[in-house]
Amino acid sequence: MIAQERPGEDGLIARFFAPIAGKGALGLKDDAACLAPKPGHDLVLTADALVERVHFLPEDAPGSIARKALGVNVSDLAAKGAEPAGFLLSLALPDDWTEAWLAGFAAGLGEASRDFGCPLLGGDTVKARGPLTLSVTAVGQVPSGRMVRRTTAQAGDLVCVTGTIGDAALGLRLRAGPAWAEALSPGERAHLADRYLHPQPRHRLAAALRDHASAAMDVSDGLAGDLAKMMRASGLSALVDADRVPLSPAGRTAVGSSPELLDLALTGGDDYEILCTVPEKKLDSLRKEADRVGITLSVIGRVVEGHDRPVFRMNGLERRYDVGSYQHF
Amino acid sequence: MIAQERPGEDGLIARFFAPIAGKGALGLKDDAACLAPKPGHDLVLTADALVERVHFLPEDAPGSIARKALGVNVSDLAAKGAEPAGFLLSLALPDDWTEAWLAGFAAGLGEASRDFGCPLLGGDTVKARGPLTLSVTAVGQVPSGRMVRRTTAQAGDLVCVTGTIGDAALGLRLRAGPAWAEALSPGERAHLADRYLHPQPRHRLAAALRDHASAAMDVSDGLAGDLAKMMRASGLSALVDADRVPLSPAGRTAVGSSPELLDLALTGGDDYEILCTVPEKKLDSLRKEADRVGITLSVIGRVVEGHDRPVFRMNGLERRYDVGSYQHF
Repeated sequence: MIAQERPGEDGLIARFFAPIAGKGALGLKDDAACLAPKPGHDLVLTADALVERVHFLPEDAPGSIARKALGVNVSDLAAKGAEPAGFLLSLALPDDWTEAWLAGFAAGLGEASRDFGCPLLGGDTVKARGPLTLSVTAVGQVPSGRMVRRTTAQAGDLVCVTGTIGDAALGLRLRAGPAWAEALSPGERAHLADRYLHPQPRHRLAAALRDHASAAMDVSDGLAGDLAKMMRASGLSALVDADRVPLSPAGRTAVGSSPELLDLALTGGDDYEILCTVPEKKLDSLRKEADRVGITLSVIGRVVEGHDRPVFRMNGLERRYDVGSYQHF
Repeated sequence: MIAQERPGEDGLIARFFAPIAGKGALGLKDDAACLAPKPGHDLVLTADALVERVHFLPEDAPGSIARKALGVNVSDLAAKGAEPAGFLLSLALPDDWTEAWLAGFAAGLGEASRDFGCPLLGGDTVKARGPLTLSVTAVGQVPSGRMVRRTTAQAGDLVCVTGTIGDAALGLRLRAGPAWAEALSPGERAHLADRYLHPQPRHRLAAALRDHASAAMDVSDGLAGDLAKMMRASGLSALVDADRVPLSPAGRTAVGSSPELLDLALTGGDDYEILCTVPEKKLDSLRKEADRVGITLSVIGRVVEGHDRPVFRMNGLERRYDVGSYQHF
């Protein structure tokens, strides 16, 4: 029986995870990890769970699933202005796991861990009794009192977003083989598919956010819904110019061929870009910092007084998204 | 439809989890928690996942499941000499969750959190697509460089264990209605059942372990297997007097009526007691500290040179357990 030749939990950890573990993990041979925090810093802690068919698809490459599980957590740290210090992984594996799958998963996790500067510190591996379920807890550090909050936007601030919006939602939709896919070049299709599979956390912008942003969060559940959350948390509203929401060339082609896809781009999830509010006088300096680390930053609107959902202006119309946030739950 | 009247993720967090959250959780309204570490301390980080039918049973009370999920993690911190600082919870809920279930879960979690001095800091709630699956990441603190390791036992040290061993494994077995249950009083049966459901992490012993133990871990996968792990990690072996392994009155009754249950007691999991090695000259002082916090401590053997599995002496025989550790995985 192949199943019985697979390593047990200790063997699995030693073989697949110990080689990618950081120093504080103590070789994954103890009950817990040990981390010496930087003096004068606060810890920033975040956890995100991913479930097969909810957050990724069973046919996704194991290395991609691993990269996404870590990436979405590092994205949360980045939005809080925190530098990654490490992560713990809880992995509930279904009965039919194979060594090849796990080797691919560990390789992708190790590569992502190096790319994001976020070492593996520990975790747990258990039987799933259902589909693959993962939970990552990421630990970051910020100078004391400097975590960038979600609740502290100020009326008059500019609303900014990194990178491009809507690619991941379009990339996921693309898998169903929609008619609009015909309008895209193979390269454009590949771009959108990749953006769903491989979030690019903006951790290199963390320090600049601390110095410039009045509030920030990452866009994980859709731009419209996440902006509404941030404004509600700050007791404010926002006015967004939909034309200024940055789309990738592939996103523009898709929306150009099927204009109703703009709604999907603005409300679909999985962007993992940074949404932040910035006092106007700090914009140039933030832009310079973003340029320096190769991240594009777009101004898409302004924070205004009020308690209504943010308004998106497009083609002379004003629109509020009622359900602007993808509900994973 | 009842299902549609249930709150969404944000409503669920606000209603059930925000009331039991600690200060660093920021009301569970931000992307991440913020924790100011004690100056001069290291962080100790541990994660344990629990899956229905693997680590608990579907008929267990939701408050008990919550207490166990937190308790097993606090037990890891305690074994490392760490004081709890807080925890994050990833909860993958099956489709048929009810508000009553979740209210019971949150109440049990809040109570355990207060009992263990370990506040809720954050987490994530997602759809399970399978049975209930939880993962807790607990964060503790120790004075810098003082985490108690698993790898540092010394030949000649005494092997000690807190509380009583085997109760939880017997309590779980009891649910199948075995013949030996007849030998137990209702109170004894209730004691064993409760020990499976409600681990009692020995967090009040954390400071004393730092000052006295040369090595420690918690007994989660069975005494024989966990002792073998600790000795292997330390490059040593151990000689245990099985008669000195502490059994509860209920455990003694069970083993008295069915002597083969001693093997179950020594190898079954879920004890969540502390296994530690202690230099002989520090024993009296550790015992005094344990007495002070109401935890019993038993000497069960001695660390010896060698690389074989620990020997258990019983009835004039010597026994090594080949598979002494319950495999959750």
